[in-house]
Amino acid sequence: MATKKEKLSRLQDLYVHELKDIYSAEKQITKALPKMIKGASSPELKKSFENHLQETERQINRLEEIFQRLDETSRGPKCQGMEGLLKEGGDFLKEDATPEVLDAGIIVGAQKVEHYEIAAYGSLCTFAETLGFDEDLELLKQSIEEEKMADEKLTELAEAGVNEESVS
Amino acid sequence: MATKKEKLSRLQDLYVHELKDIYSAEKQITKALPKMIKGASSPELKKSFENHLQETERQINRLEEIFQRLDETSRGPKCQGMEGLLKEGGDFLKEDATPEVLDAGIIVGAQKVEHYEIAAYGSLCTFAETLGFDEDLELLKQSIEEEKMADEKLTELAEAGVNEESVS
Repeated sequence: MATKKEKLSRLQDLYVHELKDIYSAEKQITKALPKMIKGASSPELKKSFENHLQETERQINRLEEIFQRLDETSRGPKCQGMEGLLKEGGDFLKEDATPEVLDAGIIVGAQKVEHYEIAAYGSLCTFAETLGFDEDLELLKQSIEEEKMADEKLTELAEAGVNEESVS
Repeated sequence: MATKKEKLSRLQDLYVHELKDIYSAEKQITKALPKMIKGASSPELKKSFENHLQETERQINRLEEIFQRLDETSRGPKCQGMEGLLKEGGDFLKEDATPEVLDAGIIVGAQKVEHYEIAAYGSLCTFAETLGFDEDLELLKQSIEEEKMADEKLTELAEAGVNEESVS
């Protein structure tokens, strides 16, 4: 009863709420990616995650630029959606699997993470456009394009990997 | 130490592992959708969730058909990714928000759920194709197309909603 409820009366309040959510998600991803790099066997998959870690850092910087412009703090509740996705992915890394099958499963988990971000940035783009926040929109569009490309790259790696290695 | 580890040595093992994951996810969604229908204000959004509940039931039936063909049980660990997504969505329903902003936020949560499913069914289609499970592939393709269309419909509702109602 004593908890402070957030008053979401305007679209801008929801926009800030969702910015904080994806900021928390991105921060969690920077902690998870090194474990995925370590767990992956394919050098190309490792390289893809290394690139995405750098991209994630840039996406965090973009969000910080937006928070500064809005005069809002980036601090908010931990993103529970991403927490669940990364818990699932982290548990999968502990499975007793062959390296090829483990890679294929790591890719499944990573694509679920990418799709969370595609959905989140998609909504944020719609909100920024409606609110007339053109500079924000420009930054958010860069991030969603990176996420879509990362997802496509993972699909390529999955198709190449399962066709060549893990079928028996 | 006493926990039984799953041996994932073949792509088919991973395929079954992921089928069980999405089966658990779909089951969780059937329990969450009625709350989202109740929480939404827009009649069109309510209607869209009602349709999606029926679609979800059909998707569950398709998965059961696949499990039967593979002679596998549908029982598996609770999908933690979906658990996190639905917890986040459920918490959002309790926010102190205007009806229009609440609808916009419910759509954000629903699109994250759709994207989880798009990623999951996308991987399952790749695996079924590689394994030569053509009948499975046919069913999985029907489900992924439904998820993509549900996501597009939500984008339309979001764009129409935020432009008309929730800006102030």
